[in-house]
Amino acid sequence: MKLTILGCFSATPRTFNNPTSQLLEVKGNLFLIDCGEGTQVQLRKQKIKFSRIKHIFISHLHGDHFYGLPGLISTFHLLGREAELNIYGPKGIEEAIKLLLKLSNSWIDFPLIFHELTSKDSELILENEKVEVRTIPLDHRVYTNGFLFKEKEGERKLDIAKVLNYDIDKAYYQKIKKGKDITLDNGEVVKNDEITLDPMPSKSYAFCSDTRYKRDVIPLIKNVNVLYHESTFLEEHQHLAVKTKHSTAKEAAQIAKDATVETLILGHYSTRYGDLECFKEEAKQVFEAVELADDGKEFDF
Amino acid sequence: MKLTILGCFSATPRTFNNPTSQLLEVKGNLFLIDCGEGTQVQLRKQKIKFSRIKHIFISHLHGDHFYGLPGLISTFHLLGREAELNIYGPKGIEEAIKLLLKLSNSWIDFPLIFHELTSKDSELILENEKVEVRTIPLDHRVYTNGFLFKEKEGERKLDIAKVLNYDIDKAYYQKIKKGKDITLDNGEVVKNDEITLDPMPSKSYAFCSDTRYKRDVIPLIKNVNVLYHESTFLEEHQHLAVKTKHSTAKEAAQIAKDATVETLILGHYSTRYGDLECFKEEAKQVFEAVELADDGKEFDF
Repeated sequence: MKLTILGCFSATPRTFNNPTSQLLEVKGNLFLIDCGEGTQVQLRKQKIKFSRIKHIFISHLHGDHFYGLPGLISTFHLLGREAELNIYGPKGIEEAIKLLLKLSNSWIDFPLIFHELTSKDSELILENEKVEVRTIPLDHRVYTNGFLFKEKEGERKLDIAKVLNYDIDKAYYQKIKKGKDITLDNGEVVKNDEITLDPMPSKSYAFCSDTRYKRDVIPLIKNVNVLYHESTFLEEHQHLAVKTKHSTAKEAAQIAKDATVETLILGHYSTRYGDLECFKEEAKQVFEAVELADDGKEFDF
Repeated sequence: MKLTILGCFSATPRTFNNPTSQLLEVKGNLFLIDCGEGTQVQLRKQKIKFSRIKHIFISHLHGDHFYGLPGLISTFHLLGREAELNIYGPKGIEEAIKLLLKLSNSWIDFPLIFHELTSKDSELILENEKVEVRTIPLDHRVYTNGFLFKEKEGERKLDIAKVLNYDIDKAYYQKIKKGKDITLDNGEVVKNDEITLDPMPSKSYAFCSDTRYKRDVIPLIKNVNVLYHESTFLEEHQHLAVKTKHSTAKEAAQIAKDATVETLILGHYSTRYGDLECFKEEAKQVFEAVELADDGKEFDF
């Protein structure tokens, strides 16, 4: 997986800080997660081919996570897009986008498919051969979901030295990779695990923004490789985190620790803090493997 | 008047080109004209105090003129704005903004007043002591208005040498500036034009974007000091201008010439052209006093 942070600051776009948006690449799938104002310019800066984005996930309908979407859809249209676009987000997102399109007298030539979310429980919202995506219900001032992206288990790997011990035609290799046993011409059955190795472990990524400290997410994100968890505030402003339904860096770290994730990425910083290192320092007191999101930063895992 | 171009490119925001937005300062009034995506960042770059903007004029509801407005209103709210905000724009703008506010569960603490426009004739939409603003009906793919800003005539200026020829108490100076005659203690009447000079000529600015070449605007903008007229295309792409209801640089120049304006500013360039100078060259064949808009450029007049 490759995660590119397009924006990771809270509340409002600023001269050098973009509101929330991320691009996740999973086995050739390109997923856009949240779409604050300015996201399309951030995508251009990253030289992303717009037509590769076929699924957009919107956590909630606050402006700093959503107000870049109408313009992005409009740009897709102006660029002559034909590919289907799927949008996953809270109920109301379809009404909003369709009203804006109607007012601009714009007809969209590509299939625009809305998947409106209303459930308070985690649900499977996308599944294809390579990946599955589930919601992570969060606790914010408005209906909000995080998203859990899990690679599906890949094919088994041929243990080629062992395969060559047998007279197996190459035409069977695909079947073997899919876990099948092989019957040789002489009737001998070669068990699959004798000639293959386990596939690469499948990776997982959990996006949790915006949310008050919510321990219910822990079983949903257990053991993920990478967790992005918002940390709008430091502990010294914990009262603001409670009031505005956000989290502190320490709280994000506690979630990461209890979910035994590999790496925690912090973001959605309030712009009241000058130096972002203080978020890392606070989180590290609870959980060691902490990274700081920053606009344009990439994470490969 | 002082005009600051925040964005002047057509269609979509790009890495270094912003969609339409302008800031006009008229005798202390700060007017925002159109509000494409990214306008609030452009305002920050110009170090504009957001609370000074009390009137926003939206020409039409295409994204490149409008999609920065929801985020700007949201930012005003987050910054604790209390001052009234007036929004002038096509019918439907109130429904769109209110739906987005409802979906984000945001309550706006400041008075947000919509002035929806539907007339096909020019109308007076704002008048205060210093300025009046009228619509300029345009011809685009969707209901569109330009805006005409006219300073009101200022006070007459005291011709102080002549004033001192008479025994006039300073308490009367304000009255004289307002054009009143003065009756001296001895009963003698001093005519106002004997002791005053004409006020500074009042300035005017016309904003015309987006529009097909439309000669009906000429009487409305006759003799303005500055005309901003869109020139999305060059003459070589006149067929595209007709098709998409835009103008060419030559057509904009013809309007400027026939309306005998002082200065024409071109903008709303299609990004198909590498060098903007070609717009200026084409327009100058018809009308000499041509300037090119560019993001961040200021015009004082």
